[in-house]
Amino acid sequence: MSDWPKAEAYRDRTVLVTGGLGFIGLNLVAALHAVGTRIRILGRSWPPTSGIYGPLLQDASFIKGDLRDETVVAEAVRGVDVVFNLAGKAGPAASNAAPFEDLDVNCRGQLVLLEACRQLAPEATVVFPSSRLVYKPTHELPVRETAPTGPLSIYGAHKLAAEHYHEIYLRLYGLKSVVLRITNPYGRFQRPEQKSYGIINWFIHLAVSDDSLPVYGDGAQMRDYVHVEDVVRAFLLAGVSPAAVGKIFNIGGGEPTSFRGMAEMVVSAARRGSVRTVAWPRDAATVETGDFAADITSIKETLRWHPTVPLRRGIEDVVEQYERMSDGTAGSGLALP
Amino acid sequence: MSDWPKAEAYRDRTVLVTGGLGFIGLNLVAALHAVGTRIRILGRSWPPTSGIYGPLLQDASFIKGDLRDETVVAEAVRGVDVVFNLAGKAGPAASNAAPFEDLDVNCRGQLVLLEACRQLAPEATVVFPSSRLVYKPTHELPVRETAPTGPLSIYGAHKLAAEHYHEIYLRLYGLKSVVLRITNPYGRFQRPEQKSYGIINWFIHLAVSDDSLPVYGDGAQMRDYVHVEDVVRAFLLAGVSPAAVGKIFNIGGGEPTSFRGMAEMVVSAARRGSVRTVAWPRDAATVETGDFAADITSIKETLRWHPTVPLRRGIEDVVEQYERMSDGTAGSGLALP
Repeated sequence: MSDWPKAEAYRDRTVLVTGGLGFIGLNLVAALHAVGTRIRILGRSWPPTSGIYGPLLQDASFIKGDLRDETVVAEAVRGVDVVFNLAGKAGPAASNAAPFEDLDVNCRGQLVLLEACRQLAPEATVVFPSSRLVYKPTHELPVRETAPTGPLSIYGAHKLAAEHYHEIYLRLYGLKSVVLRITNPYGRFQRPEQKSYGIINWFIHLAVSDDSLPVYGDGAQMRDYVHVEDVVRAFLLAGVSPAAVGKIFNIGGGEPTSFRGMAEMVVSAARRGSVRTVAWPRDAATVETGDFAADITSIKETLRWHPTVPLRRGIEDVVEQYERMSDGTAGSGLALP
Repeated sequence: MSDWPKAEAYRDRTVLVTGGLGFIGLNLVAALHAVGTRIRILGRSWPPTSGIYGPLLQDASFIKGDLRDETVVAEAVRGVDVVFNLAGKAGPAASNAAPFEDLDVNCRGQLVLLEACRQLAPEATVVFPSSRLVYKPTHELPVRETAPTGPLSIYGAHKLAAEHYHEIYLRLYGLKSVVLRITNPYGRFQRPEQKSYGIINWFIHLAVSDDSLPVYGDGAQMRDYVHVEDVVRAFLLAGVSPAAVGKIFNIGGGEPTSFRGMAEMVVSAARRGSVRTVAWPRDAATVETGDFAADITSIKETLRWHPTVPLRRGIEDVVEQYERMSDGTAGSGLALP
């Protein structure tokens, strides 16, 4: 991925990745590693659970701590040029079950980071991952960034509040930021057990284990899946493009697919597993948005970003990784994305 | 005010007013007192600072505590029919200066209340005061409830998050709620020192003291002032009208007026004081929304509510109250609104 746009812009820069051992975080770290960025990772656990990440992380400096800890965050942001602020708690159904925890992490934690940046890294650019889940469910697809908001989950409500924090800190203090509303990301380096967030990865995990993939209802609901390699490019562009500052961009795959269609594609790519129809579980039904597809015109026009990984190829890529993991040969398969 | 619509609906009901010693709270308590409601007040200070409130409060039961205290809130909500949830921290400029405090009160506090209601008062209706400050500044006036949101202050961001909490708790748990987006309320029972929130009351206080009223810039910015008596009627209607459940309503005065025009009206009504032009203070400038006027068609059509107090008459009414307060005869002038 050394040919990603503006790779040069990250050479010898200092970049903080909060939540850098999470799914998108690890992929970002891998990309930054390839171009000689000084990488700082803020995370709550070290060493990472799987040894396969070792080669990626050997040059990164690691700061162990929580986004809500002002002292740790102050240490983490000092002198950074770009912050990829991926720390947070994912999962709309989980947030409805534990609203106070979601509030503390996804609102208070973001305020701690922004306060630290305005005081200690006022020249930095903060890239914040928001979610399609801030939108009010609509039949008018694809959804533009100007569409009405109206989250069905506490998670979505807090993502939206945090978006506003970033806009307010730009307006009040000139702290540069970019908001990326991500649809359904999937790809390498996602822990297979993360069911609620990374549905494709979980399905691939099931298929590779020759298990059945539960499809809720008729599975006709449209989803917009985007490969993490494309998400990473959007972050990298956002972090160094003056035209991105203060903007909100949808990040989608541009290839809306039914839930069932995705499941069948996974089974086909894995050459194992099966699709099984199940009734909607209550917690999933309460946060179900209906069909979704993101309009990605704005980031295409502003940053020349566009998705490059077709869904079928992206799924095959993860299948290959998971097969190597179950072989115990994953370490050797660790190509940078 | 015994002729307000549906007064009967509140007789022998149990109503909790959180923040019941604040500006809107006291006016609500006064109206409820007049029709034989069992009133509970949750507030942080007792007795209230001024003895003039005594007659209003003699029949109310008072629970001393903070909205963030789960134990106290549980005691407060048990068995109530309606909650007027006025506790919170006001002031957009103050919220930007102290974002964590605003978060704790205006987000976490609201979650504590909603959690208590869904567990202990699942049949209750919660009426939540939001603000015009959730809207994105716009030149398209008057502003409908469907207009884009985009707060300039942490306060506005948190009011919007709390609106979403109410919608989510209705959807998930069937907890009934109504959101009222209030413009600029003024009227009796507001403490004169509350500058940032109650600009008219503060100006009347200055004028009655024969002081000068600072108008920022040219004072041409349009505002939508609404008398608290009209705000109170909106709360009362919202609390007992099935058609209101799940709705968001603008509550405005229907008589948009320039800031300078309002100041001149105050000086004229008080027959004292003067208007003085000053430069925009930085904290006010950062949260200035430009012209604002609320479209109140929705609540007019749904609840038959409309504003009844013309601005000039409302200002004269407060002038009279403040004159009596400075005479030391305010106690005798305490007519129910």
